[in-house]
Amino acid sequence: MVETQGPLSALVLITGANRGLGLEMVKQMVETQGPLTPVSVLFACCRDPGGPRAEVNLTFDLVLYCLLNSLDAADPKSIKQAAQQVASVVGKSGLNIIINNAAIAIRSPFFESTPEEMQNCFNINAIGPMFISLLRAAAKDSGTPGMSCRKAAVINISTIASSNGLANETYNKWRVLPYRVSKAAMNMMSVCASVELQKDEILCMMLHPGWVRTDLGGPEGELDTHESVEGMFRVMNSLTEKHCGALLNWKGETVPW
Amino acid sequence: MVETQGPLSALVLITGANRGLGLEMVKQMVETQGPLTPVSVLFACCRDPGGPRAEVNLTFDLVLYCLLNSLDAADPKSIKQAAQQVASVVGKSGLNIIINNAAIAIRSPFFESTPEEMQNCFNINAIGPMFISLLRAAAKDSGTPGMSCRKAAVINISTIASSNGLANETYNKWRVLPYRVSKAAMNMMSVCASVELQKDEILCMMLHPGWVRTDLGGPEGELDTHESVEGMFRVMNSLTEKHCGALLNWKGETVPW
Ligand SMILES: NC(=O)c1ccc[n+]([C@@H]2O[C@H](COP(=O)([O-])OP(=O)(O)OC[C@H]3O[C@@H](n4cnc5c(N)ncnc54)[C@H](OP(=O)(O)O)[C@@H]3O)[C@@H](O)[C@H]2O)c1
Ligand SMILES: NC(=O)c1ccc[n+]([C@@H]2O[C@H](COP(=O)([O-])OP(=O)(O)OC[C@H]3O[C@@H](n4cnc5c(N)ncnc54)[C@H](OP(=O)(O)O)[C@@H]3O)[C@@H](O)[C@H]2O)c1
Repeated sequence: MVETQGPLSALVLITGANRGLGLEMVKQMVETQGPLTPVSVLFACCRDPGGPRAEVNLTFDLVLYCLLNSLDAADPKSIKQAAQQVASVVGKSGLNIIINNAAIAIRSPFFESTPEEMQNCFNINAIGPMFISLLRAAAKDSGTPGMSCRKAAVINISTIASSNGLANETYNKWRVLPYRVSKAAMNMMSVCASVELQKDEILCMMLHPGWVRTDLGGPEGELDTHESVEGMFRVMNSLTEKHCGALLNWKGETVPW
Repeated sequence: MVETQGPLSALVLITGANRGLGLEMVKQMVETQGPLTPVSVLFACCRDPGGPRAEVNLTFDLVLYCLLNSLDAADPKSIKQAAQQVASVVGKSGLNIIINNAAIAIRSPFFESTPEEMQNCFNINAIGPMFISLLRAAAKDSGTPGMSCRKAAVINISTIASSNGLANETYNKWRVLPYRVSKAAMNMMSVCASVELQKDEILCMMLHPGWVRTDLGGPEGELDTHESVEGMFRVMNSLTEKHCGALLNWKGETVPW
């Protein structure tokens, strides 16, 4: 169980916000009872806001809170564009929380994984957007010492399947080589980022949402998106500088590397 | 200290064999006093055998042992071609040991690392050749139970810089984001491979050579190539099924993930 620190008013960006865990995060962020509310601006990013996989038309339903950006996490140009769009809205306040949630799960088993699948999965899952300058602005703007999601944080959504130490237990359940490799790569990226960003008092850590019933998790998942996101938000709300570079699950427990 | 199991006659393939640690491995393999000798056939692979970076003309000096293949570890086609060439030489005996040693170190610091550098480093360092069918042949051919380098093994040359757990200590020494990320990806690939290959009794594990004075390690490295390779060969010679999926250093000590 994690301690909480009371409510938060934040400028937040979430990728992959049109369905699955990303959409549930958006919903809970705009419900006032959520642990991370109130949010002042929420950038609910997806690569095709009006497309068939956008389960809720966010611009319409949550009009006060949501600004939709077509952000393709695999495309550096699209990331740059989104960063400029966001900057033009938030100005000097910057962004308090970036949740890198967008991912694909290429499900190839070991001997059928092609180099192209490995590369594709790596591009989308590991090289996520960081928007460092927006986080720096928020960290400066906050005027408080230490680190927290209230100040400036990058939360990278990882997975228990990225754990080398647990592979003997988990591998036969999820034989998804390109996905595992891309998430292990993302973990190292996050760990390096956590060291780099310390001097700016920007927190960077990873969360495992649990095994959740979404398109990616499949119907056999152990949690629904509501439970998972509630848990992750509780954990996020309790984060301090102690959690720099940590990989925690939705209950706040450390996942071994 | 690791136990050794006596001499070995093996069919071996090493990538990046033209300089640095790869070249030293070749040299020690063909010296009869090395712990892994005698080798019956050694494929010393490099991408440009006659090129300016081939420090020794291996075909000339070590004529009985070496067959050079132009193998570009970043190019799936080149890997396939090399596998066919190797198969035509070794036939049913297959390969006992594959040492994935070729790598590049893109030295970009965090904020200057481009997606292209990340992708390039990932392609060369993480998606190494595996030659599974040649290893399977060797495992079958051996007729002995259990696992060892004498039977069939993939040895992936990793690095302490791939360790998430040690990043706080090592990051400021080697701020090499694309390299770290690619090696963390290679670790996960190896761990998955180690589980997949167990049923064929093929051992897959990772070795950290130490900080070695080569082009990649730089002049401040703590070891010369001779000491490092001597240590790694001693470790390789002692490997059993207990070491499936392990990451050990040149002294046989476990490197934390
Ligand atoms: N569900 C689980 O059991 C589980 C377990 C461990 C970790 N996770 C992690 O949790 C996160 C969310 O997963 P989920 O279960 O909610 O998956 P999901 O339902 O499949 O949703 C994936 C989201 O990522 C987006 N996305 C994919 N590629 C993208 C790209 N190139 N650019 C922008 N957006 C892209 C999708 O958008 P489109 O609609 O445009 O495709 C979608 O919004 C992922 O990081 C996943 O690895 C999930
Ligand atoms: N030295 C250290 O301190 C240290 C520490 C930890 C881990 N390591 C690891 O040890 C291994 C050997 O490193 P080293 O120190 O010997 O490095 P090195 O002296 O720079 O040699 C690297 C070798 O890899 C080859 N290579 C690079 N890209 C290739 C490609 N696309 N296809 C085929 N071959 C390619 C190079 O061939 P070309 O001549 O054609 O470029 C060269 O033979 C690497 O995996 C490295 O990550 C080294």
